[in-house]
Amino acid sequence: MSIQQVLADCRSRVEQQLDQLITTDSSLEPRLQLAMRHGLLNGGKRLRPALVYLGYQLCSGQPGSTLAERAAVAIECIHSYSLVHDDLPAMDDDDLRRGQPTCHIAFDEATAILAGDALQCLAFEHLSAPIEGESPALQLRMLATLARASGERGMVAGQAFDLSHVDKPLTLEQLKAMHACKTGALITAAIELGALAAGPAGEDKLEALRRYGDLIGLAFQIQDDLLDIEGDTETLGKPQGSDLAQNKPTYPALLGLEGARQQLQQLHQEAVDILAAFGPAAEDLIGLTDYIVSRDH
Amino acid sequence: MSIQQVLADCRSRVEQQLDQLITTDSSLEPRLQLAMRHGLLNGGKRLRPALVYLGYQLCSGQPGSTLAERAAVAIECIHSYSLVHDDLPAMDDDDLRRGQPTCHIAFDEATAILAGDALQCLAFEHLSAPIEGESPALQLRMLATLARASGERGMVAGQAFDLSHVDKPLTLEQLKAMHACKTGALITAAIELGALAAGPAGEDKLEALRRYGDLIGLAFQIQDDLLDIEGDTETLGKPQGSDLAQNKPTYPALLGLEGARQQLQQLHQEAVDILAAFGPAAEDLIGLTDYIVSRDH
Repeated sequence: MSIQQVLADCRSRVEQQLDQLITTDSSLEPRLQLAMRHGLLNGGKRLRPALVYLGYQLCSGQPGSTLAERAAVAIECIHSYSLVHDDLPAMDDDDLRRGQPTCHIAFDEATAILAGDALQCLAFEHLSAPIEGESPALQLRMLATLARASGERGMVAGQAFDLSHVDKPLTLEQLKAMHACKTGALITAAIELGALAAGPAGEDKLEALRRYGDLIGLAFQIQDDLLDIEGDTETLGKPQGSDLAQNKPTYPALLGLEGARQQLQQLHQEAVDILAAFGPAAEDLIGLTDYIVSRDH
Repeated sequence: MSIQQVLADCRSRVEQQLDQLITTDSSLEPRLQLAMRHGLLNGGKRLRPALVYLGYQLCSGQPGSTLAERAAVAIECIHSYSLVHDDLPAMDDDDLRRGQPTCHIAFDEATAILAGDALQCLAFEHLSAPIEGESPALQLRMLATLARASGERGMVAGQAFDLSHVDKPLTLEQLKAMHACKTGALITAAIELGALAAGPAGEDKLEALRRYGDLIGLAFQIQDDLLDIEGDTETLGKPQGSDLAQNKPTYPALLGLEGARQQLQQLHQEAVDILAAFGPAAEDLIGLTDYIVSRDH
């Protein structure tokens, strides 16, 4: 199966669940659930759920694991809430995401804040519901992993740092630290959650997969920066060159275009080397790694 | 010990932990942690942690329970994040809370949104960290309880309904349903978390305590409404009459002043009757119940 097919499978698997996750049935305020659905079901790439699934598969997890499914849904709820809040007028002030009106445009600002809040909460609710035959201790550990990656030392810290450094020069170290929090922490958590869901077989591979997650998190960001310069506005779903226009610090700005491309190449190679050590089971995850550095949107 | 002393003890117990919970040590963006501390350490009544502690005590929980302490801290993080977000310009647009500048005034709007996000996340992180000698299944159940009360079917739903009904007439049923979500769900969760933390002894009392929580949640809100009419601006820390001025639906507006007072009296009596069935162990919780309907701020 091509990696495109694998990713499409992962996407449809998680989207089927996301679509059933939030309903307006007997809701006090159905508009809240509609705004949550708007934020969640917006045609995302579903990269984080795919990392959960493929991490789980690499660790010999058996198909049909409720725990892996729960983790995939939960991490996408966190990612989606962060996008809804990032787009707010007080933050990035974006009217469009993937060609569609952002949540505060389609609804209103207060509803978007609350929908984001409720999506974050739902991530933890979904992952904390009891699962027949699974270890509560393991589930607890996965919740702690997800929370640590999402909060004041992870994703939110990165976003706060980013906002407070608009129009300020960053060193390469600062840029790396920012992205390690802003996008890296959740990407690493995704692969970690997949491995954890597989039980003891995943435990042994955890350290290597964490390192892998850190590498592809960084690679993902560099590719994002390169796309902003080299990409096509229509394919990207946002104006090409918007980072430069907003004077955002990027890898190409600090390393030069060629330097950034080389760095991306190195990260890719190191990530693939880690996976190669796991043998044929890593095939799909290697495909995903290739995709991350070669994607056009 | 008087209930004032009991509450002061609960307050200092939880505040000692809240004060140590968030530090700027090796933070990527210390301003985020400062804003979180601003939202959390703002002289609140700490009613929800007190309900956790006293619920735990009623269920014969032994002193020194890490689980009860964790629950008290977690629920106050949730409550604090909700206040930080409620105060935002797009929501209630309040500049002052308890006489102090609100988070987005003391910092800025983006930081207040992120500080609220991180406080919510921290609640789940704190309650999901492993505890030596405690049952992970129980901890998981407490996380699910907290999440359910906080999200799209609980606190956030109530806030969304409230915002979308400004200047619209509400029936008594709608007003009750709104407050049952907006403040009631978290108050009931607090007493439930205390009972759960006590283990099997709490399990037996859970249903009665849930009903008790629902009653005092409603009583708390009616007293709030009455204070807005009868209270003193300085004692309240917000302008007296501000609900009326904003045309917010209140119990006195729907039931009349006397009707609201009578309703408060009935709720109080029913709540005390539930507790009385537990004998002398309920003394402090009865004191807290009296306090809720007689407080002047």
